[in-house]
Amino acid sequence: MAQFLKVKTADEVLSILDRIEPLSPETVSLALACGRRLASDMTAVEAVPHFVRATMDGYAVRARDTFGASESMPALLERSGEVAIGEAPGFAVTPGKAVEIPTGGMLPEGADAVVMVEYTSVLDNTTIEITRPVAPGENVLKAGDDIALGETLFREGALLRPQDVGVLAALGIVDVEVFRVPLVALISTGDEIVPVETRLLAPGKVRDINSFSLAAQIKSAGARIGMQERVSDRLEDLVWACQEALKDHDVIVLSGGSSVGVRDYTTQVLAVLPESELLVHGVAIRPGKPTIFGRAGGVLFWGLPGQPVSALITCQAFVLASLRKLQGMVEPELAYAHALGAILNRQVPSVHGRTDYVPVALSRGIGGAMEASPIFGKSGAISILARADGYLVIPEHVEGLDAGAEVSVFLF
Amino acid sequence: MAQFLKVKTADEVLSILDRIEPLSPETVSLALACGRRLASDMTAVEAVPHFVRATMDGYAVRARDTFGASESMPALLERSGEVAIGEAPGFAVTPGKAVEIPTGGMLPEGADAVVMVEYTSVLDNTTIEITRPVAPGENVLKAGDDIALGETLFREGALLRPQDVGVLAALGIVDVEVFRVPLVALISTGDEIVPVETRLLAPGKVRDINSFSLAAQIKSAGARIGMQERVSDRLEDLVWACQEALKDHDVIVLSGGSSVGVRDYTTQVLAVLPESELLVHGVAIRPGKPTIFGRAGGVLFWGLPGQPVSALITCQAFVLASLRKLQGMVEPELAYAHALGAILNRQVPSVHGRTDYVPVALSRGIGGAMEASPIFGKSGAISILARADGYLVIPEHVEGLDAGAEVSVFLF
Repeated sequence: MAQFLKVKTADEVLSILDRIEPLSPETVSLALACGRRLASDMTAVEAVPHFVRATMDGYAVRARDTFGASESMPALLERSGEVAIGEAPGFAVTPGKAVEIPTGGMLPEGADAVVMVEYTSVLDNTTIEITRPVAPGENVLKAGDDIALGETLFREGALLRPQDVGVLAALGIVDVEVFRVPLVALISTGDEIVPVETRLLAPGKVRDINSFSLAAQIKSAGARIGMQERVSDRLEDLVWACQEALKDHDVIVLSGGSSVGVRDYTTQVLAVLPESELLVHGVAIRPGKPTIFGRAGGVLFWGLPGQPVSALITCQAFVLASLRKLQGMVEPELAYAHALGAILNRQVPSVHGRTDYVPVALSRGIGGAMEASPIFGKSGAISILARADGYLVIPEHVEGLDAGAEVSVFLF
Repeated sequence: MAQFLKVKTADEVLSILDRIEPLSPETVSLALACGRRLASDMTAVEAVPHFVRATMDGYAVRARDTFGASESMPALLERSGEVAIGEAPGFAVTPGKAVEIPTGGMLPEGADAVVMVEYTSVLDNTTIEITRPVAPGENVLKAGDDIALGETLFREGALLRPQDVGVLAALGIVDVEVFRVPLVALISTGDEIVPVETRLLAPGKVRDINSFSLAAQIKSAGARIGMQERVSDRLEDLVWACQEALKDHDVIVLSGGSSVGVRDYTTQVLAVLPESELLVHGVAIRPGKPTIFGRAGGVLFWGLPGQPVSALITCQAFVLASLRKLQGMVEPELAYAHALGAILNRQVPSVHGRTDYVPVALSRGIGGAMEASPIFGKSGAISILARADGYLVIPEHVEGLDAGAEVSVFLF
């Protein structure tokens, strides 16, 4: 049966993945840039705003004209025109004058602050009262106050979120250079695997779960699925499918059936592919020990256990990390690296030298603290993952966790 | 200028949103079901597995034949055939016999346990040694052990994750009834707003940030963008655009320019639409006070402040919640409700009676604890959000937070 003599630790695998270079850059329109990663640093090509603007509704004034104003001793200023939104005012604010201005309006020449409308009252057609002084620059965004010309906005590899897209829109950047999204070939094999649409399962057969669950996971990491095939458990068929995939995919994910031979086939398939290199042959984790990683030329090659729970966990822990590296991830971002703190509500055994991924359900315990309940069950039961809110990781040098331990739960 | 006399609290708005009914159900193929919400409870139409299967590579045996086995006193069993993966074995395991079986293989009649290969050794062609006893049922998944026939798998409104899609695949469910995804009309207005592709901004003009940042946020909540238009700041144009949108959209999101008149226009536009009802006219939050919510017949209507930071925050806090309700969200799920615990590293003032959304950057402080640094800056600076990892919420009854306070940070 399959031997994994040179099994690597989870950390060793992650540091191998850390060396993956991003795919080539491509240009996408801003409307499609959210969720993509920048292929180069971006600096501001303009100042934002490019004119002095009001950040409140009120009156544009010369700040010194309001000094000393109070409820009991308001400053009286002469109303003098109105700034229309979106237009450059064709007049200046001279001493003793106040000009009505909306939020976002452009300050007239001479004005250096805005008095909020709440601290003004209109006495008559020509005069307003001001009951609070403003300092120069108050309620005003000066040119470049938001974004300075030449400022570094984002680093290469930054994941663009809605607000980042907003910053690019503010600068008029309509085309964005991002790293290409990986195209993944998903191949499932195993003589016991039948198509999902099979109505009546023959004894010994199981439906092709991985084609659906792994595809969903891979898409959640921003990658695209190209070839998606169920291939018979024969070496030559697997090699042929992988050679086809090599033509235009960036990653091959082969999830083996549970049959004993398949795990060996996976390394044999890789060995046959051009310029191939086996980088990981087994990982000291549970579940998912028989995980294989290598490359064939520039194409990443994953061999995952066929057992659906093991396949999902190893895909989550390793394959998705490799897909994010291909998309230019520089270091684990908060959105991925973060975990939810919780108190473990019962003991979980583990073994020194092995990293355990333990599915847990979360609930609010007494006092509102988040409690993590490990979901035990028979190995290979996919319903365990469906009942789980996330998983915790017991590192290789830790021998189990006690009830009451503070743990980090990764949602999935 | 605009008055918001009947301003509601953030909690009041959320409880109004809580009454939103989901859209109609539709059937989608399993490959497209991830990220969608179930339109009905789902029960298991089959048992999984439907046959007794091995969960380990090893030998299928009658457990009693191994009782008392040890390293020093191994049990000797007769090797008798081999189970092929995916096939029903055509033979039984009789007393004293052991049958080689792969993980996932079907147990032969008579066998009730599997001895892991690690605890066996082959003596010769006909005999194996077993060095550890197994209990009946050990390393075996009985029919229905994973999923029992008739078991409730998922409740109406459950968000399908990759592992849930896997469970449905295991059961051969290829079509899934989910709630329809809302189609959103995104209208931005304001006389100062010019298209993003404008190269040279005239004084007083700003580019149309919201069309991009709000669209990205709305898509991140699983909704689709239909009509997307920049409309002039005239009542009749806005009414016309909304009437067009009513024809085939589920939600209208109108982000007003900053011009003083627009906020009034928004309620006037809503008032003109058929069967319209104004439900929220101002929210006691900062930023985002001039937020408007209502409905026109079955279509939700949002009026967001035009100022890009306010628009992003109110969309995140309220619009996305309404989109999730339309998709059938029953209660806030962990994936959305969760927040990251952090220590606030400086004081943040707030005002009683108002909910504040404060952008923060996260970093690892001394000792590895997560620290939240509030990002202060001039009102309306979109670069603040680009520098933020998330935001914290200061509830209406709290008057500011002190440095050192434990806070929950919502990533965005």
